[in-house]
Amino acid sequence: MQKRAKNNVILIMDLYFDNAATTRLSENALEAYIKTEREFFANPSSVHRDGIKARKELERIRESIASAMSIPPSSLFFTSGATESIATVFSSLLFNEPGRIIISSIEHEAVSSWLPILKHHGWDTVVLKAKGGKADPEELRALLTPDTKLVAVMAVNNVTGAREDIKELVRTVREYERQGNRKIFFFSDSVQALGKVPYDIQELGIDGASFSGHKINGPRGIGMLYLKNPASFRPLAPAGGQERGKRGGTENLPAIAALEQAVLSWLGSFGSEYERISGINQEIRKALEDLGMEILSPEDSSPYIISFVSPLPSEVYVRMLSDKGIAASSGSACSNNSKGEGEKILLSMGIRSSKARNAVRISFSGDTDRESADAFIKAVKEISNGE
Amino acid sequence: MQKRAKNNVILIMDLYFDNAATTRLSENALEAYIKTEREFFANPSSVHRDGIKARKELERIRESIASAMSIPPSSLFFTSGATESIATVFSSLLFNEPGRIIISSIEHEAVSSWLPILKHHGWDTVVLKAKGGKADPEELRALLTPDTKLVAVMAVNNVTGAREDIKELVRTVREYERQGNRKIFFFSDSVQALGKVPYDIQELGIDGASFSGHKINGPRGIGMLYLKNPASFRPLAPAGGQERGKRGGTENLPAIAALEQAVLSWLGSFGSEYERISGINQEIRKALEDLGMEILSPEDSSPYIISFVSPLPSEVYVRMLSDKGIAASSGSACSNNSKGEGEKILLSMGIRSSKARNAVRISFSGDTDRESADAFIKAVKEISNGE
Repeated sequence: MQKRAKNNVILIMDLYFDNAATTRLSENALEAYIKTEREFFANPSSVHRDGIKARKELERIRESIASAMSIPPSSLFFTSGATESIATVFSSLLFNEPGRIIISSIEHEAVSSWLPILKHHGWDTVVLKAKGGKADPEELRALLTPDTKLVAVMAVNNVTGAREDIKELVRTVREYERQGNRKIFFFSDSVQALGKVPYDIQELGIDGASFSGHKINGPRGIGMLYLKNPASFRPLAPAGGQERGKRGGTENLPAIAALEQAVLSWLGSFGSEYERISGINQEIRKALEDLGMEILSPEDSSPYIISFVSPLPSEVYVRMLSDKGIAASSGSACSNNSKGEGEKILLSMGIRSSKARNAVRISFSGDTDRESADAFIKAVKEISNGE
Repeated sequence: MQKRAKNNVILIMDLYFDNAATTRLSENALEAYIKTEREFFANPSSVHRDGIKARKELERIRESIASAMSIPPSSLFFTSGATESIATVFSSLLFNEPGRIIISSIEHEAVSSWLPILKHHGWDTVVLKAKGGKADPEELRALLTPDTKLVAVMAVNNVTGAREDIKELVRTVREYERQGNRKIFFFSDSVQALGKVPYDIQELGIDGASFSGHKINGPRGIGMLYLKNPASFRPLAPAGGQERGKRGGTENLPAIAALEQAVLSWLGSFGSEYERISGINQEIRKALEDLGMEILSPEDSSPYIISFVSPLPSEVYVRMLSDKGIAASSGSACSNNSKGEGEKILLSMGIRSSKARNAVRISFSGDTDRESADAFIKAVKEISNGE
């Protein structure tokens, strides 16, 4: 347990190892939120002085974030979160002639829950297996058809931290495109990738990607959508026409300003933090293996996520950890039905159901340190010793 | 101009008369945002102690807001804003067999921009006229057909403040339903109604409604959706299954807590504030009429909005007001294309284009006082006198 004094309030909090579900808002981000709310309160669409000032700030932030991500500002759109970024892309298919859509078996429900409506409108929805947690470019190649319109494979899986070989998957799609006069939209949900693993949109060559603020110590309720070719993209309904016609609704400027702080902080300290968290990851992996527990996350996973097989059903084990002041997750925990969903992802990776049922996920953030890692290891040892 | 000292920063701000576009976040709401972000940082879908605590807070707030609005908590869903609340309802039609959809001619683009995709999928989209700013129940009756699935008429128009006779429009629809075994969804975008005019959902008898946080001094990026019968409602994609399967995406708990403060504050002071703003409204209307300007807002409009015909093209007049430290709007200003959109709404009301082109909107909030009203009147007089 941690004690933190803030504004004269002593908060007794669990050691938090559920950062893949959500992270704490950083003080920098909160300050930016408050400052921007007060100084740029007007609607960026208003034509008076305050509105113009707000619009300038919005575009300054877009340039700042885009520059940090090495993408053109014109390709970056602010949304209410990754779920909406994904919805923007998938719903837009409903303006197209139906064709084939291929998604990996380990996609988050924010992606996979689009299949029923697409099926309803005549789309041929196909799932690409991810044995061992990774989608195979050759298997993808075998699924591509002349009427394939979209392929979606996430960059880093939220249950295991497995890193997908997006570059090779995109190359496979591009080669197939060249064989005919075809255009396939390659989408990559990148919520668990930005700031946490080496990630370069231009190098990957993807057409679209989704990002979330609250997974990188930014605010909840803000996210980003990357669109390589916005001009050719038609959203389902532009509403007020904000975000250059791609996303309607008054821009959430204070949250966007807070997101800027979060993105700059994660990308600015990427190298050293990646090393530091990798060290903590190795230490915890070793401790778990020494206790006879199997690690489900592939070796080259994101260092920020470890999924392992506990000796008990995961909800029991998570509760025992919780009783010792450790917040962990039994599944993806991004979903109300988290255990079922996390289990489904693991089964689709080829993991036996007896193991999947006992799978526990821990996930780290910038505020995870050696001290808290040691406390976690101590708690796990105590449980193993029946304490 | 106002000077405000805050955190040792002197802010020189315009007198703000664009509250229908967005309002300032109240200090109460901001405090709730900060407190909730710190104390309830976890994901309400997480099963550990912090997650359970966050979920309890989410449901406490839902009950608090629902109670203030005199609706069951089970009918209330949190979204990223009114645009998304509207999208949730309109996009869900794409699971239905196509039929007729009727929307009023004065709907916000967040509603009207859904017509193209519905048309694309075979829907018969019909526009109900609103002569003089008001939709006529008899005209609605004439448009109802056995295959009508949805009718949408906003509660208060955002350009003029005109109040629609929702109760009578709903009655018309219900009578028609009784003639056959029919069910028509009556939707009412209520962004400019909640807290600003007498508004009782149960009494109106509507099936769905949208609300926005930032129009009532709550945060940007948060809104609400009311669904009378959630059980019969299928969203286009449930994503993570949050909000009982109706709205995916991690719940924006700090913004929801801030929204609670905003709703309680507006509904708690409704009677006295309505009287106070009505007085300011009358004073400004009279001053404008004394200067020979025509008021476009019907007499019984929301007191929070006045639309009037200025002697100059609206963008010129708004700029002149801006130069005098007054923030007003040339159109709806919720849209990037605000002037065009506001003009279109006015033309659809039967207002001549020469008048619509010169239409200026001013809109009030809780922080609008006599002093600022007098400053506005002074500025308008000065412009009329060529000063």
